[in-house]
Amino acid sequence: MTAALIPEIPPLADPALQTALQQAIDAKTKPLGALGALEALALRIGLILGSTTPALRAPQLVVFAADHGLAAHGVSAYPPEVTWQMVENFLAGGAAVSVLARQHGLALSVVDAGVRHDFAPRAGLLVRKIGPGTADASAGPAMSAAQCEAAIAGGRALVRELPGNALLLGEMGIGNTSAAALLMSRLTGEPLPLCVGRGSGLDDAGLARKRERLHAVLQRHADARAPLAALAAFGGFEIAMLCGALLQAAFERRVIVVDGFIVGAAVLVAARLQPALLQRCVWAHAGAEAGHERLLAHLGAEPLLRLGLRLGEGSGAALAWPLLLSACRVLAEMASFEAAGVSRRAD
Amino acid sequence: MTAALIPEIPPLADPALQTALQQAIDAKTKPLGALGALEALALRIGLILGSTTPALRAPQLVVFAADHGLAAHGVSAYPPEVTWQMVENFLAGGAAVSVLARQHGLALSVVDAGVRHDFAPRAGLLVRKIGPGTADASAGPAMSAAQCEAAIAGGRALVRELPGNALLLGEMGIGNTSAAALLMSRLTGEPLPLCVGRGSGLDDAGLARKRERLHAVLQRHADARAPLAALAAFGGFEIAMLCGALLQAAFERRVIVVDGFIVGAAVLVAARLQPALLQRCVWAHAGAEAGHERLLAHLGAEPLLRLGLRLGEGSGAALAWPLLLSACRVLAEMASFEAAGVSRRAD
Repeated sequence: MTAALIPEIPPLADPALQTALQQAIDAKTKPLGALGALEALALRIGLILGSTTPALRAPQLVVFAADHGLAAHGVSAYPPEVTWQMVENFLAGGAAVSVLARQHGLALSVVDAGVRHDFAPRAGLLVRKIGPGTADASAGPAMSAAQCEAAIAGGRALVRELPGNALLLGEMGIGNTSAAALLMSRLTGEPLPLCVGRGSGLDDAGLARKRERLHAVLQRHADARAPLAALAAFGGFEIAMLCGALLQAAFERRVIVVDGFIVGAAVLVAARLQPALLQRCVWAHAGAEAGHERLLAHLGAEPLLRLGLRLGEGSGAALAWPLLLSACRVLAEMASFEAAGVSRRAD
Repeated sequence: MTAALIPEIPPLADPALQTALQQAIDAKTKPLGALGALEALALRIGLILGSTTPALRAPQLVVFAADHGLAAHGVSAYPPEVTWQMVENFLAGGAAVSVLARQHGLALSVVDAGVRHDFAPRAGLLVRKIGPGTADASAGPAMSAAQCEAAIAGGRALVRELPGNALLLGEMGIGNTSAAALLMSRLTGEPLPLCVGRGSGLDDAGLARKRERLHAVLQRHADARAPLAALAAFGGFEIAMLCGALLQAAFERRVIVVDGFIVGAAVLVAARLQPALLQRCVWAHAGAEAGHERLLAHLGAEPLLRLGLRLGEGSGAALAWPLLLSACRVLAEMASFEAAGVSRRAD
């Protein structure tokens, strides 16, 4: 079963290409390394796309949305209906991610992975509902193993149909920082309090309540230790579908732009199944949610931006997008010392 | 003399506008503060341009270039002729700043503020030469008081002719991290070793030599303590012209995008003359040059990017530019909770 569900993702290992890319970068008219993280980004994109002059085509920003049974327990500052209301806002063009996608010419799709609401069909909305929100993880698993597999397969199928060679991933789901924190603590072994943050803006009392509730949930599922078991235990449908999307995109060697804490938690799950997936990821930002920096450190991720974001939606991925374009342009368009007739350093 | 040379820059003080901007930001469909630094940026641009829906028009990226007498003393990893060679590269479109300006639709002008080279005239090049490079600051002042004033007046005149309401500033000049470090140490009181970095890539021995030479230069001009006296003593022509450009842009309430360490040093000088200039600045990035973070802290600056850049040219300003556009779009295009029918938080 798992063999068909989880594609094999081989490591990117092409020493000749890596050398050619590094030489191309170093020949550009600038001191060695002077473009800092942009050079590392150019190298990574070149390795993923298999070219010394990689070109990003038809970038797709996909936002996976779902509801969480745990949200009934007051783990968020916002009521659960905000999930479907924000989906409507994404589609109407008024949310941050809508605005930023428009700015950068990113095709925006919103996926109903399991929102507790019936949406009218329309352009940009993909209904792939696994269920009407996950079950309450404090009473049992958030989803069944079958639902978990269906979500992963659904995420894979969805990406298979998308054009382009770059995928920016975002999410929406009231309560989903709770699921992400539980997955992080379980799969990394980090103490839960270091993984739990204020989400959309809990005050101190709310944060204390969230920590307490999540502690009980973590203990309730003490036996759910394998990646997919933990995913089924804690949820959510959007995170499971993100796992599938990540695996398929990595399998197809698309450039994956990882947004914030929740997408990062999905990467954590997927990378435990196929570690070479991490080589296909670009890390958009380190946000303000408490566990995010630590999660990134666990994944060996170097985020491009540190803007104190804590919105999700894919907003950080969209904000980082022009840096990916810059990295490709540097490779394609900057002159070499020789071509420009610029003297090299004296030593 | 100084009254005509240095324009009066009044503080931006419009509490009603500030309140209106903050309310507009807080009404958008996102948790309070969830867009982090982008919200502060939107507020700043709104205050500079005097609008709750500011629009950036016809952005100008201007690179000031000049040579430095000190460069003869091996304070750079690159030979002095690289200054004019890179100017040619900017104009031919092959430098990092050329590529990034093209990506973002920024009009690029290169100013010969005092390069030791005669350029053929062409589009995009503005010859405003104060002299063929500054004099050797280890033997006397880098420039005369008259030259310093001419450079400031020239920078002001140049900006007066530019269209648009946003000015991105960059520079090129082999040896100019030395001038910037000297200005920083003198005007902030920071110990010189904390202000001196590897520039375009000195090794340890080169860095030690640079520190030693600059220490002697700082002592040689122990009496040059006022901003303009220090500027004349240490140079360079591009930094002096940047000061003029900064003052004029601030006077006209343009949004100023500050690039790296050298432009930052020019801001330091200009802000000592007219402190309210700082309110008109957006800080593109904190780079890898040793003194840059400290300089930013002195100026109370919050940089947008931290990418380990150490190139100058205006490359960091160009990379940060899309974030300014995003900030304006958030103000103009994001829906409010009321308009989108999204529930507010429970408390």
